[in-house]
Amino acid sequence: MNPVSTRRNFRSFRSEMTAFDDDDASRSLRSLADYERAALPTMSPEARSYIEGGAADEITLGDNVAAWARLALRPRVLVGPAACDLRVQLLGATRAHPILVAPTAFQQLAHPDGEIAIAQAAAATDTLMCVSTLASSGPAAVAQAVPDHPRWFQLYVFVDRGITHELIRSAADHGYEALVVTVDRPVLGLREREWRSDVRNVSRRGPSAPAPAAGDPGQGTPPADYSALIDGDLRWSDIERFVAESPLPVLVKGILTAEDAELAIQHGARGIIVSNHGGRQLDTALSGADALAPIADAVAGRIDVLVDGGIRRGTDVVKALALGARAVLVGRPLTWGLALGGARGAQHVLEILLDELRNALVLSGCPRAADLDRNYVTPAPWAR
Amino acid sequence: MNPVSTRRNFRSFRSEMTAFDDDDASRSLRSLADYERAALPTMSPEARSYIEGGAADEITLGDNVAAWARLALRPRVLVGPAACDLRVQLLGATRAHPILVAPTAFQQLAHPDGEIAIAQAAAATDTLMCVSTLASSGPAAVAQAVPDHPRWFQLYVFVDRGITHELIRSAADHGYEALVVTVDRPVLGLREREWRSDVRNVSRRGPSAPAPAAGDPGQGTPPADYSALIDGDLRWSDIERFVAESPLPVLVKGILTAEDAELAIQHGARGIIVSNHGGRQLDTALSGADALAPIADAVAGRIDVLVDGGIRRGTDVVKALALGARAVLVGRPLTWGLALGGARGAQHVLEILLDELRNALVLSGCPRAADLDRNYVTPAPWAR
Amino acid sequence: MNPVSTRRNFRSFRSEMTAFDDDDASRSLRSLADYERAALPTMSPEARSYIEGGAADEITLGDNVAAWARLALRPRVLVGPAACDLRVQLLGATRAHPILVAPTAFQQLAHPDGEIAIAQAAAATDTLMCVSTLASSGPAAVAQAVPDHPRWFQLYVFVDRGITHELIRSAADHGYEALVVTVDRPVLGLREREWRSDVRNVSRRGPSAPAPAAGDPGQGTPPADYSALIDGDLRWSDIERFVAESPLPVLVKGILTAEDAELAIQHGARGIIVSNHGGRQLDTALSGADALAPIADAVAGRIDVLVDGGIRRGTDVVKALALGARAVLVGRPLTWGLALGGARGAQHVLEILLDELRNALVLSGCPRAADLDRNYVTPAPWAR
Amino acid sequence: MNPVSTRRNFRSFRSEMTAFDDDDASRSLRSLADYERAALPTMSPEARSYIEGGAADEITLGDNVAAWARLALRPRVLVGPAACDLRVQLLGATRAHPILVAPTAFQQLAHPDGEIAIAQAAAATDTLMCVSTLASSGPAAVAQAVPDHPRWFQLYVFVDRGITHELIRSAADHGYEALVVTVDRPVLGLREREWRSDVRNVSRRGPSAPAPAAGDPGQGTPPADYSALIDGDLRWSDIERFVAESPLPVLVKGILTAEDAELAIQHGARGIIVSNHGGRQLDTALSGADALAPIADAVAGRIDVLVDGGIRRGTDVVKALALGARAVLVGRPLTWGLALGGARGAQHVLEILLDELRNALVLSGCPRAADLDRNYVTPAPWAR
Repeated sequence: MNPVSTRRNFRSFRSEMTAFDDDDASRSLRSLADYERAALPTMSPEARSYIEGGAADEITLGDNVAAWARLALRPRVLVGPAACDLRVQLLGATRAHPILVAPTAFQQLAHPDGEIAIAQAAAATDTLMCVSTLASSGPAAVAQAVPDHPRWFQLYVFVDRGITHELIRSAADHGYEALVVTVDRPVLGLREREWRSDVRNVSRRGPSAPAPAAGDPGQGTPPADYSALIDGDLRWSDIERFVAESPLPVLVKGILTAEDAELAIQHGARGIIVSNHGGRQLDTALSGADALAPIADAVAGRIDVLVDGGIRRGTDVVKALALGARAVLVGRPLTWGLALGGARGAQHVLEILLDELRNALVLSGCPRAADLDRNYVTPAPWAR
Repeated sequence: MNPVSTRRNFRSFRSEMTAFDDDDASRSLRSLADYERAALPTMSPEARSYIEGGAADEITLGDNVAAWARLALRPRVLVGPAACDLRVQLLGATRAHPILVAPTAFQQLAHPDGEIAIAQAAAATDTLMCVSTLASSGPAAVAQAVPDHPRWFQLYVFVDRGITHELIRSAADHGYEALVVTVDRPVLGLREREWRSDVRNVSRRGPSAPAPAAGDPGQGTPPADYSALIDGDLRWSDIERFVAESPLPVLVKGILTAEDAELAIQHGARGIIVSNHGGRQLDTALSGADALAPIADAVAGRIDVLVDGGIRRGTDVVKALALGARAVLVGRPLTWGLALGGARGAQHVLEILLDELRNALVLSGCPRAADLDRNYVTPAPWAR
Repeated sequence: MNPVSTRRNFRSFRSEMTAFDDDDASRSLRSLADYERAALPTMSPEARSYIEGGAADEITLGDNVAAWARLALRPRVLVGPAACDLRVQLLGATRAHPILVAPTAFQQLAHPDGEIAIAQAAAATDTLMCVSTLASSGPAAVAQAVPDHPRWFQLYVFVDRGITHELIRSAADHGYEALVVTVDRPVLGLREREWRSDVRNVSRRGPSAPAPAAGDPGQGTPPADYSALIDGDLRWSDIERFVAESPLPVLVKGILTAEDAELAIQHGARGIIVSNHGGRQLDTALSGADALAPIADAVAGRIDVLVDGGIRRGTDVVKALALGARAVLVGRPLTWGLALGGARGAQHVLEILLDELRNALVLSGCPRAADLDRNYVTPAPWAR
Repeated sequence: MNPVSTRRNFRSFRSEMTAFDDDDASRSLRSLADYERAALPTMSPEARSYIEGGAADEITLGDNVAAWARLALRPRVLVGPAACDLRVQLLGATRAHPILVAPTAFQQLAHPDGEIAIAQAAAATDTLMCVSTLASSGPAAVAQAVPDHPRWFQLYVFVDRGITHELIRSAADHGYEALVVTVDRPVLGLREREWRSDVRNVSRRGPSAPAPAAGDPGQGTPPADYSALIDGDLRWSDIERFVAESPLPVLVKGILTAEDAELAIQHGARGIIVSNHGGRQLDTALSGADALAPIADAVAGRIDVLVDGGIRRGTDVVKALALGARAVLVGRPLTWGLALGGARGAQHVLEILLDELRNALVLSGCPRAADLDRNYVTPAPWAR
């Protein structure tokens, strides 16, 4: 069964989805919000504060979700044909649908199967996965788990450029198709929720799960403070060098302004990810939902624009595409699924979101995802 | 006594209304909100989740009501004469007032008398009723109950066009005066409240009350999943065919954009109903209240524009008409009245709303409903 | 001691005010909100629902207060001289300050001394009082209580124009200086809070306190339903006739649009009161605070513009004057003072408000009330 | 250790800060909000109502904090070099960073070490302190405590200009570098929270701690009502005279309009402090955050613009500078630190804020504080 098939009849929503679990509790897992509610109590305080927390007053964290609800949909009717086509073009290739797994660190905090399980869920749903430098399992291990499934590699640039180049080479050798360079982490944000949890600072020192090491980060033991290993002084010239030297196309993750989108194009990026790092870095920074439109206008199709942050509903995906994104990345919801049910839980989360996306496309009167444009979305009157 | 008489002295509001019930409880039923509060506890969880629920996060469901309160009234004074005239023109005919019964399915969920009781309440108050394809009682049965009272028929188009044409013929034969084709249900919305109620999915399988069957839907037993019988691939060409072949004028229900209003005109519709299906289909879609003005501007009187969703007060009706609607449809409040008092409860709900409408017209300084225009309404400063 | 003297040093705010009461409770009565909190529990449910209630959902009732807080002040500094001058011109005469007692009905509901006590409080603070047609005490009785203190008379026009003319003559004979014709009550609003209080409808039948009768309304016994006696069919031609026939200048109370302000000028009114009848008539009507500015712009000084509704702070008065009002009327707060302390309570309420007004003027950098203009006020950023 | 060194590696945020206290409680003091929560219960009701309270309904008090959160940041990336430079120019001199201690009265209410402890905290963090005329310790005593650390003197102008000139001379003699004349206190605001605390009116009579006296205010005993000693009739001509006669440059504190900023320039001020006196004077006055931008536009760099009110986060400082302020002043948070830990508590508060400022600058992509401009800030979409 291929739950993202574009040929499947769009009417039987929800009925073919993976039965994540047969007991009573799982029957109530109908939305990503259900997963969040159910997953949080199962986590240790340390994991919960790391996974759920944001920077400082968490204004941006909360707004990432709220911002999508400040957009209203303008559905069209009687458009026919009604069969959904979720396919989008990304970096010149056709993808089954516009949902990606966002790079997230230390997934073993949520479940012992960690990123391997996420990768299996992604493969089962034809979802492109962006594997983090700080994954509990390194790029090689993830590649071995799902060798035939397309993956991107998210790169934190280390002060030691030797490690950095080994990481890039390892990603290329293991079939990763693109390099996503995170640029919004010159320093760690004010992770107050973590500080308060009275445990080791996960963001700075890493969890008890394995952390990155040279060659195949994720197989070694964590450094005392890996945070200091990451280069906080990255510049556009570094991006240019990665573009020139890397065998993989480069995307820049962490752009929130049209000015920087323009610079990304000028320095050779093939795509950008509009992102505020899940609300974990600069509090009161714009949400991706709000930053997206002017960036998409400036880019005008020259490179691919993706967005992450706060995607919780199929309608959120519709809005992101309508504003000009080619695709969206989803992070925390997969961790909730992982925490509750390992690979099957994460897969169910993706299935719910894909199912909602199909539902939202048909009800928006735009069954082809690639056809969405600004006419389908408007500032929400309830948020004025 | 004709409670909607335009000749009645407008001053004695409330005094002549049907005494719905003589006991203490009923004395507190003074507004539609009173009915909602009182009716909900009397319903089964299944019925309540079906009747009250909306799609997904129910943002649109809630905004349907809230949107009317984001409009403020600009009352005029000393206009005279003060006698109310509620009459409006609909499809070229004069109607006693601008309030219609919205098509709602499965009213026997609320009360064993179901749609028959609603029809009696409508007849008692000169209220045009729009009977649903999915009514617990079919169009023939409703017609027999109130043979001399004007009715419209709401059509769900079945995949089996033979059934569809039988439905249209039956409606025409039984004196229905117009065909209201619902176009915003290519698939069911995400009815999470229903899913959570741990009962059969009412929207998909129908309630225990009789469900539609060919010839006279409503007299047979419900199909295992009637939802699959409804055609999700309806197009404007279908509308054109209904217009050409049906003996009845056609209205299109479920329009939220000026673009689709224009298409409705081009394909021969005599009217449109601005509607988001009571917040049950696409969550975060615009409310009728917000979608109405640009649609009315685009239509510019060429066909009749009606609106539904969230009408709870006479002032809401005034605002709808001031923005350009010819009439409004009211759904859930009648179900509350029905649940509490059968036909008399539903009638009382209509009487309250009509009485409030008269009060609002006189206090707005526009005693003739047909004279309302944009000058009487403005974005509410409290909602800016 | 004259608490509104313009020559008094403005620095010793609060220190000279009437010691309303010496016990502990009264020491906490520092603001009009304090009075409301303290007074409500002392009232009967009937009185409370009548005095505090508004129409329908009470959106306008609440917004009357909230609307003033949606305006921010732009204070100036170092303006000198600092001595306050509260005087304003009203109908060509100099008044000590811009605060008036609003006409309110049935004050004996709150305290046996009723309007007589209010009149004494007004006299003690040089406050112009507008006596209601529906005062518990008629115009003659109020005049006898404070013979030398200026008063206006608020007129409800009765269907029986003989009574109406007797009322006007009586007002003129007893030294009332102006006639305030209420025009926003063609019918009663939806007083749901009253209906719910399970007592006689005070608004329709009047309280147990004496109600108006011909000759000297207020001295007789209440009619079974005085509401029906009031003419709901008043027109601009009636205003023109009052202007022509009455020896007193005529103000029109209940204007919310610039269009009607223009009509008031054309029909000979000397002033208008921008008002929504304390939120008791048409729910979701604009507040006076929001309706004021466009009206003041349209009137452009040709006649006097006053405003009522929601004035609770000296800063509210400053905002009203800055937007173009000559004066404000205050209703409910006097009733709270009356309920708690009779004439002394009402006087203390006026003293607090006057003291706050002086404080607000000095801190706004505009110690002369008559100098306020639009530069001192701006839409509040917190309410955008 | 110099915590504001611009050469320090910006990556190790928080790690070098003063260990304010070793016990469990202090470990949770990670933000200024933490300090507020912890400090309030340690204060007497009298002190709490004085320190925390604002005028009237405290709308402006609350909005001072909220207004900064109505601004969103537009961070840039890959800007390099990443090393922070917090230095700003103030009155022509280079200051280590843009945070100043606001003048606050009666700090001995919070801790017996009062202003002396605050001065020590300021010195330890290279923070310019603005000492209040109403400090518990006079200008000479503060100067003796931190003789080599730069200070400004805040002046309340007394009716007795002899005292005033003695104060100015004393400030000049003791090495104060500028005179900050407060102009927004012609009278005291409506300090209702203080009135309610059923204690002596601190604002009017002063606390039990020593209050200002001639020669060296702060060494004498408080007058019965020092409030009456302050000149409420100050004018621009007074500012001009201070500019002419004082050996120190003059700043005007309490400006909220561009008009008054222009007048300050015309009368010789070297700087202005955009301020509403911590929400303690005119309620519903604009916040500094909202008043700042039009003032900075009007001043256009001719004199220095500073702002105070509601600064609680490093991101607030970034926003203030981005809108055009040269520096910000922080008041209440230092009092919270003082209350909890004397000089070390106040120092920790400043260290937290400086550390957050560095973090915010780096994450905003503008590591040099002096380079911030309007491009880094935008009205927050979540507050529209």
